[in-house]
Order: sequence, then C-alpha cells, then structure tokens
Amino acid sequence: MKPKLNIVKIGGAIVEDAHELDKFLRLFAAWDGFKILVHGGGKKASKMMERMGMVPKMHEGRRITDANALEVAVMVYGGTSNTEITARLQALACNAIGMSGADGNAILATKRPVQEVDYGFAGDIVAVNQDLVAQFLTLGLYPVFCALTHDNKGQLLNTNADTIASALAIALSSQYEVLLTYCFELDGVLQDLENKGSLIFKIDSRSYKDLKKSGVISEGMLPKLQNCFNALENGVSEVRLGNVGAVNNESNYYTRIVL
Amino acid sequence: MKPKLNIVKIGGAIVEDAHELDKFLRLFAAWDGFKILVHGGGKKASKMMERMGMVPKMHEGRRITDANALEVAVMVYGGTSNTEITARLQALACNAIGMSGADGNAILATKRPVQEVDYGFAGDIVAVNQDLVAQFLTLGLYPVFCALTHDNKGQLLNTNADTIASALAIALSSQYEVLLTYCFELDGVLQDLENKGSLIFKIDSRSYKDLKKSGVISEGMLPKLQNCFNALENGVSEVRLGNVGAVNNESNYYTRIVL
Repeated sequence: MKPKLNIVKIGGAIVEDAHELDKFLRLFAAWDGFKILVHGGGKKASKMMERMGMVPKMHEGRRITDANALEVAVMVYGGTSNTEITARLQALACNAIGMSGADGNAILATKRPVQEVDYGFAGDIVAVNQDLVAQFLTLGLYPVFCALTHDNKGQLLNTNADTIASALAIALSSQYEVLLTYCFELDGVLQDLENKGSLIFKIDSRSYKDLKKSGVISEGMLPKLQNCFNALENGVSEVRLGNVGAVNNESNYYTRIVL
Repeated sequence: MKPKLNIVKIGGAIVEDAHELDKFLRLFAAWDGFKILVHGGGKKASKMMERMGMVPKMHEGRRITDANALEVAVMVYGGTSNTEITARLQALACNAIGMSGADGNAILATKRPVQEVDYGFAGDIVAVNQDLVAQFLTLGLYPVFCALTHDNKGQLLNTNADTIASALAIALSSQYEVLLTYCFELDGVLQDLENKGSLIFKIDSRSYKDLKKSGVISEGMLPKLQNCFNALENGVSEVRLGNVGAVNNESNYYTRIVL
C-alpha cells in the first residue's frame, strides 16, 4: 500500500488574512504524515504593484504577467509569502522548506504561447521533479511551494497555484496515495453564493455539467474544477474543496469531487 | 580524507551587475564537486526601499533593519536575488536550490540585543543545520543562501552574508575540507585602494594587525577579515578574498588569509 500524502493549496484570501493564515498553519503543522503546501498570493502582489505605482493588468479575470508584474510576483510570492510561511511553520515545529519551481528543478514550465491574448510571463507546466519532492518528504521536510516555475533557460514564470497543486498531486500519485485539497474562503462549492448553508457536498462529472449549465459554477471556479477532475483522472485518490477545516478528517463539511 | 567543499560568498556589487553576475555564475556552474553559494544584496535592497518611498537607515556603515527594511530584505534577498540566481544556475545545468535560513531550519539566529545601537531585525547566528546541508550536497543539490535567517519563533532576521558564509564553512568543516572564498569587486585586499596593482597576496594574523594599525584595512573590511580568521581558527582549510576569478584554481591573483 502506498503511503498517504496530503497536498493542500491555500488561496490568496487566506494568505492575506493573518488570522486565517495562522489558523490554517496551526492545522497544517499538526497533521501527521507526509504533506505539501502550495500557496497563492495574487491579491498581495496586486497591492504591492499599486504601492509601487504600477497598474496590475487583467484579462477576463486572469492576470497578465508583464515584466513589472513578474518582478513583483517574484518578490511577493517567492520572497514575502513563501519565506514568511516557512518561518511560521518552523516556529510550529513543522520542518518546512520554501520552494519555487526553480529550486532543484522542481517544476519546469514553458512560457504560454501568445494566441488571442498575450499572458506575458505565464508558465504552463511541462514536468514535475517528483523524485526530488519525494526525497525531501523522506528526509522529513515539508515543501511549501509558491506560484513560480522556471523554463530551464533562466526565466522565471508566474504559474497558477491551483495548477501547481494539481500537477504535484498527479506526479506524486505514482508513489503516494494523494489527497488534494483546495482551501479557500468558502466552505466549498455553494449552490447559492448568498446562502452559506447551501454547500454542495459532492460533485461528479455529471452534476458538474449541470452546475456549469445553470451558472452555479462559473468564472474562477471553472479552471479550479478542471484541475480537480484532471487530478482524479490522473491517479489522485481524493479531491476536496473547502475552507481551512476541509482537510481535517473530523469534519466532513466540504465539497468532495468525484469522477 | 574528507571531500572538498567550495563555499563562495558574492557581494552586493556582483549581484547587482548583470555582466559580473553572469560571469561569476558561469564559473560557479562549471566547478566540479561540492559547492555552496551565499549572496549579499544590500545595495539592491536600498534601491528598492527608495523606489517604495522608504529611507534606508544606517549606523556607521551598518544597516539598521527596521520593519520596513526587513520587509524589503525578505522581498529582495529571499525573492528577487535568490530566486533569479537559482533559475540562472539551473539554466547553466547546475542543480541549485535557493534557501533562506528558515528552509529546513538551515540557519537559526537570535535577534541582536539592543545595546548602544538598536539594529532592529538583525540576526546573530546560533546554529547551522549542517546535516541538512550535507544531505542536499549528497543529493546533488547546490544550496544558494540569501542573507536571511530565522529565530524559530516565526521571525525572519536580516543576517550579514559574510557571517552566513563563515558560519556555514565552520559548521561543514567537520565533514568537508572547506575552501571559503569571499568574492567582491576588487582583486583582494589592496595596499593602496587607488592602485589596482597593489594586491596583497597573503595576510596572516601578524600582518593583519599591522594593516589595521596603518589603516590599510578599515571599515567594512574589518568584519570581513574577522570572519576569515574566525573561519580558519574553527576548522576551515583555506580562505581567499578576491574577484570572481579567485576561486578558479588556474589563477592565484587573490588575497589568501592564513593564521
């Protein structure tokens, strides 16, 4: 039987809220067994750009990573958020190691080809160095990934943290039984965003189609759900969406995605 | 016989000069055997502070790390410089891994006690996790350290990169025969700063005293030389000061420090 591995992605809203982040990191640090953390931080980067007099560029809700945006992403994701989270986990007796995709060639990507939209220095993942990550886990280290990859030509690339989490989960599923959890500010997928009690406990491929058609799942949730199904189709054992309590096995108040 | 280990520290002037940095990284990537890179970046941090409308604070040439300065140090050292150097080394087929002292609890420090001057979030090194660093070297990884440590209570600390290099060299000298090289913009210690040909090829404890007395070695060079002697007194095999060519065994145009 393969050993279990918890991969958790936390969104920008958690990273930015000191109280929520602390709550999450305490839970994360306390979990037994192998675990990996992936964090976003887009909102923090946008704020820093504004502080530096730059204007964040978006296209249909997706970030355009021009040279300015990349500079700030490297500072904020790879510097501030990643290093601070690592130091806080160390203080909680969790032997964390902060990583970008360039570290040990952990995540190789290629610059997204320019089609209708030029997303700039946005990376599409090509390969995950799962042996390195597995070696770290064996050494008792807990990798903390930020949303940066590299192209092996010296270029850093901004890469969607949801996709990083899913790519890590898929790559490591050959050696581990992987539980992938997307943590964000909501309890999971809600039938009605205005009604916190309308949590959908399970979404499968069929209900996903219906939820898309009825507009319950739209915009930013669409690529997130795509990542969930992609993970399940490629060896990941279980996928959950929810708040910071979703990875806590004592709770079952989250959305479970099944094929 | 212990295996050889090259530990090289590059100063801020090299990190900031794209041409010099590229020259150095090409040399570094080409060296065989175990190696570790430590980089400074104080000038880059000062520039970023000015860009953000902050005022860098200094006391007798030493940086005072207030909360603003720490925020920028974490972004610039841990983010920009460390991640970019790591990505460039990867492009040069050198399997680099960027690290702060918080990563894997690599370098534990304590906030400098306030005496006559309050240096703010400045760290004095308490312990180096040499086993982790040795494990990384055995895995074929080349650690790249920035000038950040942590106190194991969640606080990041700005720590002199010369001292980080020397502390790593001392800690690893129990397992390796360590050559420690401080690379900077000069060819080494000059008898006369105005005369590039006045390189001093060797400094021992006795000539060091004379050079201090005569004022040839002063200001920023004093703590650097202290780190050199401290390293030699604590197990490090060889210490050099020079430009990016100093670690190249084909050249002997550098200052060698001996006891």
